[in-house]
Parts: sequence; structure tokens; C-alpha cells
Amino acid sequence: MSFATIGIIGKHGDPAVGETIARLAALLAGRDLRLLLDEATAETCPGLELETADREALGRACDLVLIVGGDGTLLHAARSLVEHEVPLLGINLGRRGFLVDVSPAEMEATLDRILDGAYEEERRFLLAAEVVRDGERVGAARALNDVVVHKLDVARMIETEAHVDGRHLYTLRSDGLIVATPTGSTAYALSGGGPILEPSLDALVLVPICPHSLSNRPFVTGADAVVEIRVHAHAAQLTCDGQINLQLEAGDRVRVRRMAPPIRLIHPPGHDYYEILRTKLHWNR
Amino acid sequence: MSFATIGIIGKHGDPAVGETIARLAALLAGRDLRLLLDEATAETCPGLELETADREALGRACDLVLIVGGDGTLLHAARSLVEHEVPLLGINLGRRGFLVDVSPAEMEATLDRILDGAYEEERRFLLAAEVVRDGERVGAARALNDVVVHKLDVARMIETEAHVDGRHLYTLRSDGLIVATPTGSTAYALSGGGPILEPSLDALVLVPICPHSLSNRPFVTGADAVVEIRVHAHAAQLTCDGQINLQLEAGDRVRVRRMAPPIRLIHPPGHDYYEILRTKLHWNR
Amino acid sequence: MSFATIGIIGKHGDPAVGETIARLAALLAGRDLRLLLDEATAETCPGLELETADREALGRACDLVLIVGGDGTLLHAARSLVEHEVPLLGINLGRRGFLVDVSPAEMEATLDRILDGAYEEERRFLLAAEVVRDGERVGAARALNDVVVHKLDVARMIETEAHVDGRHLYTLRSDGLIVATPTGSTAYALSGGGPILEPSLDALVLVPICPHSLSNRPFVTGADAVVEIRVHAHAAQLTCDGQINLQLEAGDRVRVRRMAPPIRLIHPPGHDYYEILRTKLHWNR
Amino acid sequence: MSFATIGIIGKHGDPAVGETIARLAALLAGRDLRLLLDEATAETCPGLELETADREALGRACDLVLIVGGDGTLLHAARSLVEHEVPLLGINLGRRGFLVDVSPAEMEATLDRILDGAYEEERRFLLAAEVVRDGERVGAARALNDVVVHKLDVARMIETEAHVDGRHLYTLRSDGLIVATPTGSTAYALSGGGPILEPSLDALVLVPICPHSLSNRPFVTGADAVVEIRVHAHAAQLTCDGQINLQLEAGDRVRVRRMAPPIRLIHPPGHDYYEILRTKLHWNR
Repeated sequence: MSFATIGIIGKHGDPAVGETIARLAALLAGRDLRLLLDEATAETCPGLELETADREALGRACDLVLIVGGDGTLLHAARSLVEHEVPLLGINLGRRGFLVDVSPAEMEATLDRILDGAYEEERRFLLAAEVVRDGERVGAARALNDVVVHKLDVARMIETEAHVDGRHLYTLRSDGLIVATPTGSTAYALSGGGPILEPSLDALVLVPICPHSLSNRPFVTGADAVVEIRVHAHAAQLTCDGQINLQLEAGDRVRVRRMAPPIRLIHPPGHDYYEILRTKLHWNR
Repeated sequence: MSFATIGIIGKHGDPAVGETIARLAALLAGRDLRLLLDEATAETCPGLELETADREALGRACDLVLIVGGDGTLLHAARSLVEHEVPLLGINLGRRGFLVDVSPAEMEATLDRILDGAYEEERRFLLAAEVVRDGERVGAARALNDVVVHKLDVARMIETEAHVDGRHLYTLRSDGLIVATPTGSTAYALSGGGPILEPSLDALVLVPICPHSLSNRPFVTGADAVVEIRVHAHAAQLTCDGQINLQLEAGDRVRVRRMAPPIRLIHPPGHDYYEILRTKLHWNR
Repeated sequence: MSFATIGIIGKHGDPAVGETIARLAALLAGRDLRLLLDEATAETCPGLELETADREALGRACDLVLIVGGDGTLLHAARSLVEHEVPLLGINLGRRGFLVDVSPAEMEATLDRILDGAYEEERRFLLAAEVVRDGERVGAARALNDVVVHKLDVARMIETEAHVDGRHLYTLRSDGLIVATPTGSTAYALSGGGPILEPSLDALVLVPICPHSLSNRPFVTGADAVVEIRVHAHAAQLTCDGQINLQLEAGDRVRVRRMAPPIRLIHPPGHDYYEILRTKLHWNR
Repeated sequence: MSFATIGIIGKHGDPAVGETIARLAALLAGRDLRLLLDEATAETCPGLELETADREALGRACDLVLIVGGDGTLLHAARSLVEHEVPLLGINLGRRGFLVDVSPAEMEATLDRILDGAYEEERRFLLAAEVVRDGERVGAARALNDVVVHKLDVARMIETEAHVDGRHLYTLRSDGLIVATPTGSTAYALSGGGPILEPSLDALVLVPICPHSLSNRPFVTGADAVVEIRVHAHAAQLTCDGQINLQLEAGDRVRVRRMAPPIRLIHPPGHDYYEILRTKLHWNR
């Protein structure tokens, strides 16, 4: 695959990202490429002399989108671009993330190789969540990391009922319940006591947050399972990737299932996910 | 010690508790005792023909206070009566708690023995929390179970800094931080991954809630330690026993220390805390 | 599928199982079936007037094998019969297991329905482990629950290096490392802090036992992954299903991969795995 | 206190420690001090021209003992010297431990200050364990970190019964049970899921190792409690500090209680235990 049109999205609301983007643009100037800057990024970083496009147009036009920022920036971009099935490449701002694994220092060499066709591609699936109230769909959102049903009153546990493919798994008293993808298994779910899932695994994991019953342990099921979480009482909140929030009422049902198209993540050749794991979790002593 | 004046406090807002209180009053009628019903309970349970008193008067007048309800009822009573150093006896409504360990079925026999002087007494200390903002004390509360600093925006971790006796323990990114007494170690702190503390132990435990760093483990220190939790950024909430809430702002310092007088809990002779533990945590298979 | 020849295997070394087997034989006598009793069971339970066969012949001849005992009995039978792809039905001795889910009380009704063709079948995969020393295979075993590399000197951690599909995952100082199937995820791996895997999930989980590094968390990967565990120093032991033991030396490599044929587990119609989970883990309050 | 006679103990069986000891001896040569080298260390490190003494004589004669090695070296020295109540100072070999906190690089400056009287002293208690079989004491050992009852057959859980001050706490099916001091709470007990205890806390913690029942959680009790562990069946092993092993038989009772004299640990002024914790547990990011 060759990349003719390349989009650039920067970290939300961070003007400092403009410098890295300017370096990126200079790097790419020598190649016969069309560059498109995300409109919102252009507003945050005035002075970049690049053609701009809104997110939708960017997704349609680009063969590759460079995401400059942290994992949160890539999560946001992934949710907005997933239908376009455009490859994404994450460039960090000095601190390596699980998803933005190219550092500014190695950016030039890495991009050269990738644009010359030497790269690895992996797919990561997203989750679609919808809120059903009295039989009607009243809200929806998507997530690359996790869908979380969380107590809204921080001083009070909530009771939820989890069903997997229509079968009752458990009724849970807890601070909340996380449904995480393999991508999200190293994020909030890990803090909640969940396992790490191999990124390519066709599975998702339910992680109870501070469950009242100590034997309520993380549960891993297939990625095609439909998970329904019923909110028994008290108000709760649905959060996707820690970035989108929907209010929930007692009686609401949250349905979570895999989105059909995955995102495509591009890495430099020799990309080693386990090395990232070892570094970020301090497994190397 | 002999008990001449006995107070009765019922579960907040639960008229069903009136029946048990009526049975209690009948049981005690044959003895030469003065009975005082908590004013708030009297409002919840009209029809009880008992002398009433407000909480303060109850604490001053009584030699023993019977708490009828769940552990939450006893937590509330303990906080309001602690300065009076009056013994408390917890009577449950059919479901044994850690604190309300006398069941309605055994209530009669148990009371007889206790009023005849056959009982065990143990002391449980409370925590006093105060909120310091810009050098001024802006709020205070007390807790028998736990003082919790919790994120207010459920989708976002908070950063706190914990100091013990003026020394920096750690800077923590988490959903919150629990400071629990031995009494509270079997409540929320246990769901958060904390250890169980022997009830008479002069110690308290700090339990991080879903910490970002997986090595941030529960920390047990002496009951006389002063724990200060500094809220670094974002709004947070202080919760005592899951019942009292105070808003916190970035920069606030929460100071937690042991209250001087403990509460006095009365148990029937032969009371076995470990048996309660085994039953409530399903250790008996 | 119709069952013409039915094998019976009883719990190893437990003569008390003879009574349940006698009842089973009586139940089946009215049907036009050939019954074959496992030779080892016949020795344990003399007096059963049934045709006997050794394990190999049993596997070849039978259309269904009834396993009478606990989960351990079924684990053993599964390992010895897996190549024959014969359906297994677990009948417990009064205490329900995860695998032996038919109780003696319901045995008669259940068997009638199953023999009439009303049943559910699920597949569970096994693991094959081999020990490679100086390039040569020096031992092999199989497991339905788990393959465990464990320190042999109980007072000393071992260092192991885990590789997944040839890639270095981590170097681990711990009491050992469990590789568990979904079936085994509710056994020893759960005690070690692992998640529960949906029984039909094509995945396995690596669970470090008491790891020195607190961030060494359970890791779930695809069932087709080849896991290699290298024993760095000190003697260790390989254990399969807690029933087979092989000694390991420093330098040994243990390779674990999925066995090709799974076992076939038969359940009565309406079998509800989640209900078993809820009961056995006390999730029902 | 002034130090007139100083002992030196080196890491067991490590000749490399001789170099650091030679540097130490040179440092101290200018002062009017008597130096005594541990006999066993002298054998390991020939060529050190120092007066030697056996461990007992060393303990009797010295006002301060320098321990050169890792935490294990100090554990061993502490157990052998505790009755002498002689202050101990731990010097590491480049890798800081929890107990040996003076590095070779800062050794000179630190020793100067300490010998001039500027130091901090803290006390750490040890545990005494005895094995009672058929009413008779058949073994005994002591520990600064932990007393562990561990399964001997690595493939099989053991059943133990824990009693605290004569009261039954629980009957446990697990890989074993750790009784740890505050000092030991950051060692094996931490890997087993235990909390961190403030080093000066008068408490000990029981940590079940891979318990079958998921609600069997660490239990913290007072340092004066007598803990009795009864081994129900199968062989087991008692291990103290991971260094002393005693075989246990079914029926044995292991009694663990605090030793009367604590050890005295010397630190340079400004010693910050929390800083060690943060560094060793990677709490500083």
C-alpha cells in the first residue's frame, strides 16, 4: 500500500503540539504527498501553513493519519475515524504510550521506512454501547478502551446485573463495572484488577470495580458476546474511554457489543508489544 | 455496671423497625428501668408509647443505648454519641452485621443476661477528619468506619499526595484513597483490596482505590498517626462512613486523626468476632 | 447421536463410588445398551457384575463415558480419553463440581433424557506440555486444567522466562507460573489471582504465582499460542492438573500448546454454566 | 552512645565482599577503635588482616556491628545477634535493600557521622516459632521477616487451621500461610498480596498463599498475639526468613510469638523509610 494523502491530528487543546507537527510537515515536504491538517488541531495550533479538513473529510481523503499526542489523542481519533478504515500511526510527545509508540526522536527515520512500505499493521476492535430506557434507545457511544458503568454518587455502591448473550452472569454490588477490549485491558481495567489481554485476542473482559463480594472476579468472554448491564437502582453514569459520559437511570440497560470494522494501527517494522508492556509496567527490574 | 436508663435508636426512616422496638419495650417493661426513645425514631415509628429525647439528651441521660437496625444505623449512632462514652448494643433486623450482632430471635435472652451484668465490652476508635483550605479549616466530620477521598468526576482519576506524620508517603493517581479504622477494614476498604485488622488493633489502614500504579498497596500505620491527604487537582469529595459528604477543591488538605474517646460496644458473653468473620466472608465453605 | 456402548469410570481408589455405579447400572439395565466398566474402577469396587475393559479399549468401544466422582476424576479421564473423542458425562457424589455437574439425585431423570437424545455438548481443549533439555525432549504430559511450573525448594523463588510464540514476554521471579485453559481458570489459577475465562473461549491464561514484581499480572493470549517457559536456575517441578509431576532442571524449557482434539462434555439440556459459577463462588449472596 | 568495639559481618560465601570490608577497615583505622571480623566472613575473605571472633563473641564484645551484604545477610545477622541487643548497621554492595540502606559510595561520610554520634535508631521485633508434635516441642527457629508454613508437595494444597490467642480464626486450604512482621511485610508477604506495615507498628500479618477461598484475606493482629497454625494433613514445611527449614507432619502445631528483645537498626540521620519504599516499589513513576 502506498500513502498519497496523509492526515495529521494533534492533541486536543495543546498548542505545544504545533512544534512537532511543523517538524513532521517539514519531514514530509520532500515527498510527493498531500498533507491534510485536522481542522480542530489547526485552531489549536495557528501558524501551521497546511491545508485543513474536518474530521469526516480527513477520514474520507486520507490513506494514513498521523496522531500526535498521547494515548488519549489516539483513542479520540480512533473513535471518530473507525468507519473510514484508514490506518493510524501514533507519534508521542516524548512519553511513550501503549498506542502512540513512535517517539519524536525516531519520528524521521520511522516515517521514512513506513512511507517506503516497511511497516506492520494490526487491528484493534472497538465497542459500541447503547443505552436502552423503557425499550427505547436513548443514547449511544463507542470506545476503543472501555465502557464503564460507574456509580454517580461516589459514596454509595450501585447494584448492576450483568448478562452475557442473554444469560445472567451475576448481580453485582460494586463501585461499577468495566467492559474492556484487549486495548483497554492495560488501562483502567488493569487498575481495577483485570488481566492483560493479548492485543489481537478476540475477547473482552468484565472487571468489577471494588466489588462487595470478594469472589467477584474479572471475567473474560469472546469479543462477539453481547454484554448487557442493567442498572438496578440509584443513578449511574456510562463512560466510554474516560472521555464520553452519559447519565443512566435506575432500570436502564446498557448493551455493549463489538463494532464491525476495527481500526488499523500502523507500527514500524520490528514493533514489539511485549517490550512496551515490560517497560511501562516496570517488569525490567 | 448497672443500667438504669436505656436509650433506643432505630434505623433511619424505616417504620418496620417499630415492631422490633415495641417488642424490646415490652421485654424491658418488667424491669425497673427508664426507657428513652430517640426523637427521630419516634417520628419514623409513631405509636410507640415511650418517652422521647433528642440525640444529645439521650447521650447524656443513658447508661446503655440499644441500636436497632443495620451496621449503618450503628455507625450513625456511634458518631453522634461518642463524646458521651455510653455503651452501645446493636440489635439487627434479621441479617447479622459486623456491629449489630444480636438477632431479634435471641434478643430477649441476650438482654436479660446483659442487664444482669453478664456482657463483654470492647472499644472501637473513631476518626476525625478536617478539611483545610488556604490555611483555614473549612469542614470537619467524623467516622467509625472510614474517611474516603474520592474523585468527583467519575471518569477521571485524581492525584493525591499522602503524608503520614508530616512525612511524604506517596503521590497517588487513583479513584481515591480510603483511610479505615479496624472497624472499617471489613467494609469498603475490604472491597478496595485492604487487609482485615483485628478490631482492637491500634492501627489504621490506607487503601488506594484502583491505583494507576499496581504496586501502590494498602499501608497499615499506627492509630496515632496523623494522615494528611492533599488533593492535587480536579474536584474531589470527602466521604465519612459513606454517610457524610464534603466537597473538596484542588489544593485542599484533608487531615485525619484518631478521636480521643472511643465508643464502647457491648456484646453478649462469649461473643466471637472470628465466628462473625467466618460467616460473613463465607470462610465456612 | 445414539449411545449404544456406555463406559463407566469411577473415582480413583474410592470404594464408596461402587454404590453409585451399581445404581447407574441398574438404571441402564432396561435399555438395550452394552456397559463397560473401567478396569481400574472394577478393582477398586469389587462386586459390580459388569463387563470390564482397560482405558484404551474403553475409549475405542464407547459412545459415551460416564465419570462418577469429583472434578479430579473427570480431569484424569479426559486426559486418558481425549484422542478417542468420546463424549463424557460427569456425575458427582453429592458435591457439585465445575465439571461433574449431574448429582446422584437427578442422575436417573437426567440420564433418561440424555440417552433419548436431549443433551448439550461443549468442547474443552487440553494442553500438551513437553520438557526440552539440551535440545532433546525428555518428558511430556497433558492437562485439561493447567500446566504449572513451580519452585521445588519451597523456601526459594525461581526465575523463569516466558516466551509466547517465540517472543519474550517477561522474566519472572515468583513461586511459579500457571498456564491454564478456560476449564482450569476456575481452579488453581483463580487462587493465584487469575481471571475467569468463558469455557468456550479460544484462549489460555498465564498466571504468575506470588510474583516478586507486583505489576506482573495475569496475561490472556490465544489458545493457539505456543508458550515456552525457561527455567533459569534452581530445580523446579512441572505439574499437570495437580496430578502429574515431572522434575525440571535449570536450563529446561517447557513448551505448552493446545492439543488438537478437544474433549466433548455432555450436559443435560438447560445446563447453565453461569449458575454453577454463581453457586460455587458464593455470588448468590 | 559511643562505639568502641565494632564488628563486621560479610555476605555469606561471597569473597567479593572482602573488598568493601577492606575499604571499611581502612576508613576506621584512623579512629581509636577495636575491629572484630566475623569468623565465617574471615574464612570467605582470606587476606583481611583483622582480629576475628565467632558470632557469639562478636555479639558480646561489640557496641556496633556493620553488616555488609544484602537484606538476607542482615536477616541472618539479626537472628544470631538479637539477644545481645547490639546495634546493627547495614551496608549494601551497590543495590539498596530495605534493611541495608547505606551504599558503598556514601559509606565513608555516613560512618563518620554515625561514629560521631549522629544517627537514628529504630527497633524491629523478631518472631519465635516452635513446632509442637504430640505435645512435645520438636523444633524451634526465629525470624525477622516471616515464618511460613508451606505445602511440601508442590502439586497439592494443604489444609491448616489458624488460631490467634487460642481462638479459631479460620481453616484454610491454600499453598501455605505466612506470618510476617512489619519488617517482613515488604518481602514475601507482599508478593502474597499482603499490606505494607509501618516498620514500627506493633503488629503482625497473616497472609494466606493462593487460598482456595477467594475471601481469605490478609489479617493484621497485634504483635503480642500468639498465632498457632495446625497442619491438618499431608506433609508441610516451616520456613523462617526463607533461610531455615523444618519439616512438619500432619498434626503438628506451629506456635509463633514475638521475641522479647528487638533488634536495633542504626540509620544515618535523615533516614527516610518512605523514600526507600517509593524507590523500591517504583512509586516514583
